[in-house]
Amino acid sequence: MFDPIEKLKEFIRQPSVSTDPKFHAGMKGAQEFVSGLLGSMGFAVEVVKTERHPIILASRGTNKNWPHVLIYGHYDVQPADPLNLWKTPAFEPTIIGNRIYGRGAADNKGPLMTNIAAVASLLEENPQLPLRLTFLIEGEEEMGSPSFPEFLNRYADRLRAADFVFLSDTALPNENQVVITCGLRGLALFDVHLTGAKGDLHSGLHGGVLRNPIQALAEILATLHTPDGRVNVPGFYDEVLEVEPWERAELKMLAADEKAYAEFLGIDTFYTTPGFSPFESARFQPTLEFNGIGGGYQGEGTKTVIPSKAFAKISCRLVPNQRPDRIKQIVMDTIRARTPKGIKLEFVDQHKGEPYVVVPPDRSNTPKDQSPVLAQAFRAADKAVASVWGRRPLYLREGGSVPIIAEIKRVTGLDSVMFGLFLPEDNLHAPNESFNLDVMKKGTETTRRILADLASR
Amino acid sequence: MFDPIEKLKEFIRQPSVSTDPKFHAGMKGAQEFVSGLLGSMGFAVEVVKTERHPIILASRGTNKNWPHVLIYGHYDVQPADPLNLWKTPAFEPTIIGNRIYGRGAADNKGPLMTNIAAVASLLEENPQLPLRLTFLIEGEEEMGSPSFPEFLNRYADRLRAADFVFLSDTALPNENQVVITCGLRGLALFDVHLTGAKGDLHSGLHGGVLRNPIQALAEILATLHTPDGRVNVPGFYDEVLEVEPWERAELKMLAADEKAYAEFLGIDTFYTTPGFSPFESARFQPTLEFNGIGGGYQGEGTKTVIPSKAFAKISCRLVPNQRPDRIKQIVMDTIRARTPKGIKLEFVDQHKGEPYVVVPPDRSNTPKDQSPVLAQAFRAADKAVASVWGRRPLYLREGGSVPIIAEIKRVTGLDSVMFGLFLPEDNLHAPNESFNLDVMKKGTETTRRILADLASR
Repeated sequence: MFDPIEKLKEFIRQPSVSTDPKFHAGMKGAQEFVSGLLGSMGFAVEVVKTERHPIILASRGTNKNWPHVLIYGHYDVQPADPLNLWKTPAFEPTIIGNRIYGRGAADNKGPLMTNIAAVASLLEENPQLPLRLTFLIEGEEEMGSPSFPEFLNRYADRLRAADFVFLSDTALPNENQVVITCGLRGLALFDVHLTGAKGDLHSGLHGGVLRNPIQALAEILATLHTPDGRVNVPGFYDEVLEVEPWERAELKMLAADEKAYAEFLGIDTFYTTPGFSPFESARFQPTLEFNGIGGGYQGEGTKTVIPSKAFAKISCRLVPNQRPDRIKQIVMDTIRARTPKGIKLEFVDQHKGEPYVVVPPDRSNTPKDQSPVLAQAFRAADKAVASVWGRRPLYLREGGSVPIIAEIKRVTGLDSVMFGLFLPEDNLHAPNESFNLDVMKKGTETTRRILADLASR
Repeated sequence: MFDPIEKLKEFIRQPSVSTDPKFHAGMKGAQEFVSGLLGSMGFAVEVVKTERHPIILASRGTNKNWPHVLIYGHYDVQPADPLNLWKTPAFEPTIIGNRIYGRGAADNKGPLMTNIAAVASLLEENPQLPLRLTFLIEGEEEMGSPSFPEFLNRYADRLRAADFVFLSDTALPNENQVVITCGLRGLALFDVHLTGAKGDLHSGLHGGVLRNPIQALAEILATLHTPDGRVNVPGFYDEVLEVEPWERAELKMLAADEKAYAEFLGIDTFYTTPGFSPFESARFQPTLEFNGIGGGYQGEGTKTVIPSKAFAKISCRLVPNQRPDRIKQIVMDTIRARTPKGIKLEFVDQHKGEPYVVVPPDRSNTPKDQSPVLAQAFRAADKAVASVWGRRPLYLREGGSVPIIAEIKRVTGLDSVMFGLFLPEDNLHAPNESFNLDVMKKGTETTRRILADLASR
């Protein structure tokens, strides 16, 4: 009999920090643990080498007439520092009340084990389950999945044989409300560097003579938004997908409290895209944000220099159907056009990610062509969540970005059903990360029902 | 017979770095060397204790009918780091060609020794010279003269007995052209700190919801100048002294080359107060400059945060008759009025300095009441420079700030005759500082003649 909590404990005990070479043994241990577990459940396991950490590809079921679900997860975790802030050892799973504590408990070991447990339970009941399943479990998610694009291209044909992707690596707003994430924002990031004089200058001897790059930077950045808070770059909104009424209605059902949200953020005034509530603005509208700025003297006291250089780090969150490359281009062109004489401009390109959206069936007024298996999965999820949690799921786009979801779609054409399982209080990426065992139990039962529904097709 | 070069060598050998407690012995050595030297010349030397480094006050002549010159200088020097960039030992004076190398050679030991040598020569000729002389030599100039204001207040009555201040702690544009500095810009410095949310936020989850303090900072700073380069703060120029035609004419005689200046700065376009050449703008007009800016993530790569905080360091260079306190007030008020809702604003006050101007006689169309001894000193300097250097001095305001000059004027009413002796190539505050011995020789003769002229009054 498969004991999911014991298995999760074993998994957490492997300190699989992908970004730190000191954790090589933990990465290997976690990979071998998952591979072994899936092997013992009858999966054919392939460990795909990459430049850093291997990807586990494990399949069962070969009948081409069976529906085929690709389950995504990752076995790597964030670093556990600062260790002194942990109340229990980061890599020694500890159950307190209805929570299991440990690095990776919620991101992503707990939710992944929930999916594995659902599959194990189904296969124990019926080893001949008429369902093809492929686990795709990577070890570089916390590093930004650097090996994933190449892997996708290499395995595209094989992955394309699936009907859709199922994953639990998104959030629930609270313990009683399931959210199925059906949209993610994309990203376009780059840095702006300005140079004035060839070196820092004495502001007494030379002040009043030349352009200060901090002033030029402030003046350029200040032009990038309208006073009411829209991005002031020609063409920026051209490709933005219209928000459908059902999406706004769904979000209203979340019954999120603006006052509590403002308190959580520590602000007294929201500043949103005009015509959108804070919750709508973060999900449905793009942004142009300054993540960092620097230049000149930043220490204590004073240093009366006219600095030679100043820079800003810019990121745009994109919504469907904005294209990161085009957005980078028009924002850079706009900045170039607004850079004054006497200032040299350079860009440092950073990464990017496509936005993503999937429309659940029976919602949109303009439904898209959708795989019948995917549509069945959405309907099965709706039913399963309603009976296990006592309330139907909400279908919401999120403000965050999971670039691999759009990348899978782009390369293989597969859409994703994102069944969120971690809670705001789970402390992802922070000390004292934990996972709610009640959520794990209900999640396992929900996933079991969704997969059983598909197998009965 | 007084040998100025040997004395200067002895002086340089004392490593008198005021900011570094490790150089305590060097500070003491330099102070005792100067005190001893002046004592041996017949001066009554008083070593005035301060919280850090003592001030030397040395006087000769008691006849109240004699003119009284207060000669200012400082015995402390800048740190010599980075030592590995020195071609000769920093504290072992070395003569190569017509230059003496060593830390403090030009700032201020060489010029101060030039003045002492002139006095020594006069007193050797005539021990009964009918001139009162007071040397005021401080040891904290390179730290910003923190003990000076209190000293000034304490000794105000005694210092007020002088007719004017004479000093050599400013620059010559080249070896053939003496400049007597007759104006300095003042300073008003403070930092602006903005806070948005109570902590850094994930730009995916929360982007589009709240004001980013970097954006707010850029938008505020961008309002502080007009597009043509004036400071855009109501009332900022209200007290700015009109530039007189003779001042522009004097500056033209400097025959400074704009192209060479642009090349030196490494820029292709000047950006000045409208209606002023670069050389005029730096001397006659105030500025509002951004010396530093910071906020959010400044490291390699990306971090998609909405930062909680951003700040800028602001300094205004002021011209007569702008008042630093008033300027701070109106700039802060303007920034406050332009800070958007949702952003908390705090100022950190930094230091300030009054601007200074003295008008040489026979120049201005609207001459000021001036001490007859000061007027005589200017006329004597004019004559002495013309015969020793073969060209009359130029009377120019400078863009830099020497706050003690305005402070002496404010507390004692004394004006200053600033007879510059260091050259652009002297490497002040940098490795391989040196002083031109031909300048020293001509400077000594010039000062000798000026003082002799006053003594013949």
